[in-house]
Amino acid sequence: MSKQLTQVSRNRCFGGWQEVWEHQSTSTQTPMKFGVYLPSKAERANCPVVYFLSGLTCNEQNFITKAAAQHFAEAYGIILVNPDTSPRGTDLPGEHDDWDFGSGAGFYLDATLAPWSEHYRMESYVINELNDLITEHFPVNGKASIMGHSMGGHGALVLGLRHRERFQSISAFAPISAPSLCPWGQKAFSNYLGDDQQTWLAYDAHHLIQQAGITLPILVYQGREDDFYKQKQLLPEALEQAAKDAGYKSLQVRYQDGYDHSFYFISSFIGEHLAFHAKYLSV
Amino acid sequence: MSKQLTQVSRNRCFGGWQEVWEHQSTSTQTPMKFGVYLPSKAERANCPVVYFLSGLTCNEQNFITKAAAQHFAEAYGIILVNPDTSPRGTDLPGEHDDWDFGSGAGFYLDATLAPWSEHYRMESYVINELNDLITEHFPVNGKASIMGHSMGGHGALVLGLRHRERFQSISAFAPISAPSLCPWGQKAFSNYLGDDQQTWLAYDAHHLIQQAGITLPILVYQGREDDFYKQKQLLPEALEQAAKDAGYKSLQVRYQDGYDHSFYFISSFIGEHLAFHAKYLSV
Repeated sequence: MSKQLTQVSRNRCFGGWQEVWEHQSTSTQTPMKFGVYLPSKAERANCPVVYFLSGLTCNEQNFITKAAAQHFAEAYGIILVNPDTSPRGTDLPGEHDDWDFGSGAGFYLDATLAPWSEHYRMESYVINELNDLITEHFPVNGKASIMGHSMGGHGALVLGLRHRERFQSISAFAPISAPSLCPWGQKAFSNYLGDDQQTWLAYDAHHLIQQAGITLPILVYQGREDDFYKQKQLLPEALEQAAKDAGYKSLQVRYQDGYDHSFYFISSFIGEHLAFHAKYLSV
Repeated sequence: MSKQLTQVSRNRCFGGWQEVWEHQSTSTQTPMKFGVYLPSKAERANCPVVYFLSGLTCNEQNFITKAAAQHFAEAYGIILVNPDTSPRGTDLPGEHDDWDFGSGAGFYLDATLAPWSEHYRMESYVINELNDLITEHFPVNGKASIMGHSMGGHGALVLGLRHRERFQSISAFAPISAPSLCPWGQKAFSNYLGDDQQTWLAYDAHHLIQQAGITLPILVYQGREDDFYKQKQLLPEALEQAAKDAGYKSLQVRYQDGYDHSFYFISSFIGEHLAFHAKYLSV
């Protein structure tokens, strides 16, 4: 049976439509919202999808209102899909206490530890449930790429590498590139996955990129004035080194002078990232 | 003596800098914030300014984060300046009760009625004080245009027409075009200016445009699915009719199918509006 989707909002935007939808998720057992931008081309043809995964504290609105991505999605005929960053509406112990863990901080993994394992299943949500919903309800052509920012950059790298048969390309702005090695990742992984650090590696981009046989093109942008980069939460150099060690040729990491961690960094370069994806999505 | 400006934030954006500044205003007797986008060209040359005036409920952040204007300002070498929409930090009777009057709703006029007349002097603030600050502290070339949205579209039309020697061009998204004839304007004018409706005409675009000898180019965009347009708060037809009656040839009003009153409407067409201003600013 078709899953029920409820339209939250719909706004004409750059000749297409920016929509927000809500549904009861079977993955998280909570209501979930996501944004969809439909370029005007989607009225007459099936289009490829680019998923955008947001960072800590964000919900589905931040990317929609601040990234200025619709302009380029319209130009390339790309459908943009951006989910929320965690389940909402639950009240687990400590869930809402910290901005870098729990609500707004799902880390795009399937938690294995109680109490998180019942609801915090963002990998299953994005890769299976959301993908199925998009395929069923929107005019997609079967090709997809994935991108994200910060925690969502980690999500894009990890989900893209773990499910690489599903994506044509990956890109990330200031991703958490080696979460096993940084405070944000260690806090999230120890709570969601437990203390056995071997289990963390399945969600660590700088580990995953060392697997043999991966050729997926990856583009990473990092601002040099990003405070979280300076605090070693992001560690793009670890990703670069791991790719180098593994002989992975398809990773490009570009450092941008003067840019910080904000959405100003994303909006400044979202056009370049969507141009990168458009090349691999054949649009 | 140079007035004191305090930098609130500075973010690299599209190759230039998005800044927010705060100062103690002599016009409003309160602290005031404003945004400045400096394109990279401003590092080596003086540039023209486009003022953007925001609508009801906004502060200086909405335009900065949602309009996606910096991309085009960088391309044209234009400095963007956007003030807040009212004084802040006061607590006059009823000031914070309504979203369409008082704080966030200064209507870009100098109030003559107590208690508003002491602080609600947004015309003096924008035209004199802010202009002086920008001239003193930023690399401007003396040419300026003015634009705005909704209440800020009213502000752009009224301040542009009242001080037409100061501007090269005016544009507006969904402006309150005939405030004397709509509930928003009637509420604001009766409280800020009093019951003598003759005094209202000095701040009513559809009246001002009938003055002889005005040739300033004006561009107005109105979304056809804008609920406030349907509720007759905006009345662009009154502006068109007044211009026609007065033989005013330089007004273009364009209706856009499907667009509503949101910032999605602004971001979709901000490039066209800045292209319009760039033509008259000779950039």
